[in-house]
Amino acid sequence: MTAPSNSYDVIVVGGGISGLSAAKLLKSHGLNPVVLEARNRVGGRTFTVQNKETKWVDLGGAYVGPTQNRILRLAKEYNVQTYKVNEQERLVHYVEGKSYPFRGSLPPIWNPIALLDFNNLFRTMDEMGKEIPREAPWRAPHAEEWDKMSMLQLFEKICWTSAVRRFATLFVNVNVTSEPHEVSALWFLWYVKQCGGTMRIFSVSNGGQERKFVGGSNQISGFMAKELGDGVKLESPVYRIDQSGDLVVVETLDKQPTRYVIVATPPSLNLKMHFNPELPPLRNQLIHRVPMGSVIKCMVYYKENFWRKKGYCGTMVIEEEDAPIGLTLDDTKPDGSVPAIMGFILARKCRKLSGLTKEERLKKICEIYARVLDSEEALHPVHYEEKNWCEEEYSGGCYTAYFPPGILTQYGKVLREPVGRLYFAGTETATEWSGYMEGAVQAGERAARESEIWQPEPESVEVPALPFVTSFWERNLPSVGGLLKLTGVSALLTLATAAGLVAYKKGLLPRS
Amino acid sequence: MTAPSNSYDVIVVGGGISGLSAAKLLKSHGLNPVVLEARNRVGGRTFTVQNKETKWVDLGGAYVGPTQNRILRLAKEYNVQTYKVNEQERLVHYVEGKSYPFRGSLPPIWNPIALLDFNNLFRTMDEMGKEIPREAPWRAPHAEEWDKMSMLQLFEKICWTSAVRRFATLFVNVNVTSEPHEVSALWFLWYVKQCGGTMRIFSVSNGGQERKFVGGSNQISGFMAKELGDGVKLESPVYRIDQSGDLVVVETLDKQPTRYVIVATPPSLNLKMHFNPELPPLRNQLIHRVPMGSVIKCMVYYKENFWRKKGYCGTMVIEEEDAPIGLTLDDTKPDGSVPAIMGFILARKCRKLSGLTKEERLKKICEIYARVLDSEEALHPVHYEEKNWCEEEYSGGCYTAYFPPGILTQYGKVLREPVGRLYFAGTETATEWSGYMEGAVQAGERAARESEIWQPEPESVEVPALPFVTSFWERNLPSVGGLLKLTGVSALLTLATAAGLVAYKKGLLPRS
Repeated sequence: MTAPSNSYDVIVVGGGISGLSAAKLLKSHGLNPVVLEARNRVGGRTFTVQNKETKWVDLGGAYVGPTQNRILRLAKEYNVQTYKVNEQERLVHYVEGKSYPFRGSLPPIWNPIALLDFNNLFRTMDEMGKEIPREAPWRAPHAEEWDKMSMLQLFEKICWTSAVRRFATLFVNVNVTSEPHEVSALWFLWYVKQCGGTMRIFSVSNGGQERKFVGGSNQISGFMAKELGDGVKLESPVYRIDQSGDLVVVETLDKQPTRYVIVATPPSLNLKMHFNPELPPLRNQLIHRVPMGSVIKCMVYYKENFWRKKGYCGTMVIEEEDAPIGLTLDDTKPDGSVPAIMGFILARKCRKLSGLTKEERLKKICEIYARVLDSEEALHPVHYEEKNWCEEEYSGGCYTAYFPPGILTQYGKVLREPVGRLYFAGTETATEWSGYMEGAVQAGERAARESEIWQPEPESVEVPALPFVTSFWERNLPSVGGLLKLTGVSALLTLATAAGLVAYKKGLLPRS
Repeated sequence: MTAPSNSYDVIVVGGGISGLSAAKLLKSHGLNPVVLEARNRVGGRTFTVQNKETKWVDLGGAYVGPTQNRILRLAKEYNVQTYKVNEQERLVHYVEGKSYPFRGSLPPIWNPIALLDFNNLFRTMDEMGKEIPREAPWRAPHAEEWDKMSMLQLFEKICWTSAVRRFATLFVNVNVTSEPHEVSALWFLWYVKQCGGTMRIFSVSNGGQERKFVGGSNQISGFMAKELGDGVKLESPVYRIDQSGDLVVVETLDKQPTRYVIVATPPSLNLKMHFNPELPPLRNQLIHRVPMGSVIKCMVYYKENFWRKKGYCGTMVIEEEDAPIGLTLDDTKPDGSVPAIMGFILARKCRKLSGLTKEERLKKICEIYARVLDSEEALHPVHYEEKNWCEEEYSGGCYTAYFPPGILTQYGKVLREPVGRLYFAGTETATEWSGYMEGAVQAGERAARESEIWQPEPESVEVPALPFVTSFWERNLPSVGGLLKLTGVSALLTLATAAGLVAYKKGLLPRS
């Protein structure tokens, strides 16, 4: 079967990182692909805006870190530099109306019972993750049981203290922009595992948020698009895919015959297209069952970098129901110019605050920053940028799709199963850093190879991964329940206090 | 603002019962609507096939009953008769490998503990339903709490016995073609309530399955389409809706300007269209969050009506994991010709058995019928019809959309909120018998009135509703937990046995 002359070998639907990296790989193998993009820009869920107030700002996907070797390889090829997100000064944990400065990846816990509980929760999530296959989470030994549970149910089972349950909620909110009761436990544990575990996914230094790209993440898509030249068509939403004849016909305003199609959209955006013949029953239902998370990315600009002067790096972990923002990071330029704080409005808060005006949101954000940083200067921003990804028709939300309870085991196996001459890319189909730019590259290149060949990626020389060393105490401290069993309630407080002290001296707890 | 001459006042997207009843009402008020239907037929999730083996068979929505007064009104207008589904002989409950014949709506329970448990579960579901507003379930006093729970979690809280938990699973499977762990408790309790309660939704006599239409349910859509004449365009999938100008432009293969648009598709099939401007953020995300249930409707035809001869009416309630079918009803024609049994392959079983061939499914179905009815004749069908609704691109599944945990409270309020000049119909937007043909009519007519005027419907003269009388014992028997509290464990068995006997004598239990 050959395509008519002057037509394309492969049509890629979607000009995000995944689709573009598929097309790039195909072209490098001498094929003639075309990328059809619905929007008037490439980059999908990465979106860099340039203006005089910000120089440039990433209103979509921005952070990269060690083990994300594919996206780092592309950046290197195009000579896009990375820089480290500022974490020189202290981070702040805001809880029950008070700010607690700290260092390290996770906020320290002083109550010894809560410490055992916290340690046990994160250890348990990582241990459960170990038995979930990255490529086929539905084959985990406890897949059915865990898929019937939401993360809220799992937290109710594991956690003894309300402090840890509350932080666990934020942990879900921040990582997958949805609520613990909305997501399948199996799916969330898989998601954390395929990013390298709880520490790798949540950390700035040595984790998924270690770096950003100088000039913005969209440059990578821009360079790929430039390389593809006429092979990228903007403002070309695909309405229909017809596989009923010898060639696949992809319809935008006009019809394009081709030999193969790579669909590089979030799974649920397959619904934007009309298929002939219809998709097989499981795929037809899967794409109704994997909603996108909810997030507004908010960048507040200030005249001066007042938080650094107070000894804060700009990272705030905020636990308060009325606070719009759950997590912030410094977004000042690497040369120290354009002082800014990036903050996420996540999940339930995103839905609630979508109804306000931009000005109202900014006001609420500045107010919480002022309280957390104890600084009147936070109330006087000089500029504001925000992006509500829930309103993007061609993303459906951000960062990524989530699986509600029961879906991964019943439909997961068709997630990247080709349908006729359609192959599926998009970060949701990745098995490492799915949900991230890195996963988009893995998925795009895997689809371009036209079969499920999982090609390992050599480690980035510039951004190597360090192991997360767990201490003797992290591995061996009992859970609260275990301790109760071991010692009886009477001895509890004494013992736990002692354990807390030892752990502190051993360096388990980050010190401020 | 006026539409150009020779254009339409209102475009209705979707030629199911909801869209057609909207257009019918508009036309009766002197307007000039057009219905655009993607398929080559009208009727949507109702689908009547005619052939010599079956005369006619409803492979989609088929059943109607008392309180469904709108669809009954339309049927009467077009002189489409109803007939009662056969329930003359005994029903069968198949559990743990044995058949138990019974009469009435629900299988009898002989174990007195299970009886208390069963009575308490259904009473509790109805009582919880009472505090859920039909028009705004998200305003129920416990909306947030119940929406965070799946029905599985609710069953785990309420039920003491595995027999009742197992039956409760079937109850969810049958009513909403999905699994207890997949659906929000708030949503499912609302769904049962807006159908009139547990008895009304599940019963054949005096319930939602009391009757069928002589000649098939599709006739009603057929008559409405005939009345609309040129105002119905088949094979016209809508790709794009542009509200950026003075008039709304609806694009199929060509562009149609109009003043108003009624979108009468399941909510998630809004995704098949491209919108300009984009939908508001909450609606843009809602439509990714309400998947359609999973069901294959299976009709097995036999030479003779052998089950009636054995004293069975044809209703089988089958609780066995390996059985493909969960519920059957007699589907013999009202004159006694074309003996047939209708059965549903539901939820998890539907997904599992979608991979088999039609012949393999038929074989499995006949085998379970032979076991349940204890009849070798069940193994020799003369004809088979089936419809897997999961493969329908323009339905996405059947019977209706379900809400996973967390969605109803966060997104429910935009379900039928107009967007510019778009109004939303479809049975999912109804507040009485949503999910049924009746709800489709309510929704279509409500959308046609262009504002949320809830018009009550006078009761059907031919199909009146009878109250479900609860006995003193049903209202006052304690739950298992309540009993334990009252009496201590020691007295339990004696008391419960006594209660069981009294209940039996009082006629609470249907007798076989």
